[in-house]
Amino acid sequence: MTEISRDGDVVTLINVFTVTPENQQRLLDLLVGATEMVMNGLPGFVSANLHKSLDGTRIVNYAQWRSKEAFEAMLEDPEAMVHMKEAAKIAEKFEPHLYEVSFIDEVVR
Amino acid sequence: MTEISRDGDVVTLINVFTVTPENQQRLLDLLVGATEMVMNGLPGFVSANLHKSLDGTRIVNYAQWRSKEAFEAMLEDPEAMVHMKEAAKIAEKFEPHLYEVSFIDEVVR
Repeated sequence: MTEISRDGDVVTLINVFTVTPENQQRLLDLLVGATEMVMNGLPGFVSANLHKSLDGTRIVNYAQWRSKEAFEAMLEDPEAMVHMKEAAKIAEKFEPHLYEVSFIDEVVR
Repeated sequence: MTEISRDGDVVTLINVFTVTPENQQRLLDLLVGATEMVMNGLPGFVSANLHKSLDGTRIVNYAQWRSKEAFEAMLEDPEAMVHMKEAAKIAEKFEPHLYEVSFIDEVVR
């Protein structure tokens, strides 16, 4: 269970992958493997949360890193680069941006 | 604090708004107002989590609804429509998709 919080002391990566519906599951499987084999062992990794769009055209990774520097170091990691290139081949496009949590409103459960 | 969970019994809306950096804060303020004044009172609202990209070009709403039907009813709500039209005027574009949580990996904190 991942927590979204304004005082979470993390930087958030939201990476939106656009895919054709026949490639959605394949890209998801690849990203699961990359997370388990490489990403979750890198310094500053906090969480990865992979989402499939119900319409088949998107995968979103909502990921948390300890800092912007940790995220940028991952981009230079040779093993991570191999997986990112594989993902880039399957996706039509991918749009990663770093975010801060600005506002949360939720019902009491 | 919002929870991302595979057994959360929610449908996830991830809406990516593209903005010019000079409009980012204005769009955020509008979405905060829309959430507080309208969205959080609608049936099936679970949470809204607004994120600002560090590069100034995106706002992402990571929102949770009890069901796809509740989300679709919101789209037809007259008050919600007023706010969505205002947001559409400020944003260059917005790309809402519904998602399911497929995979979570996180470090123990």
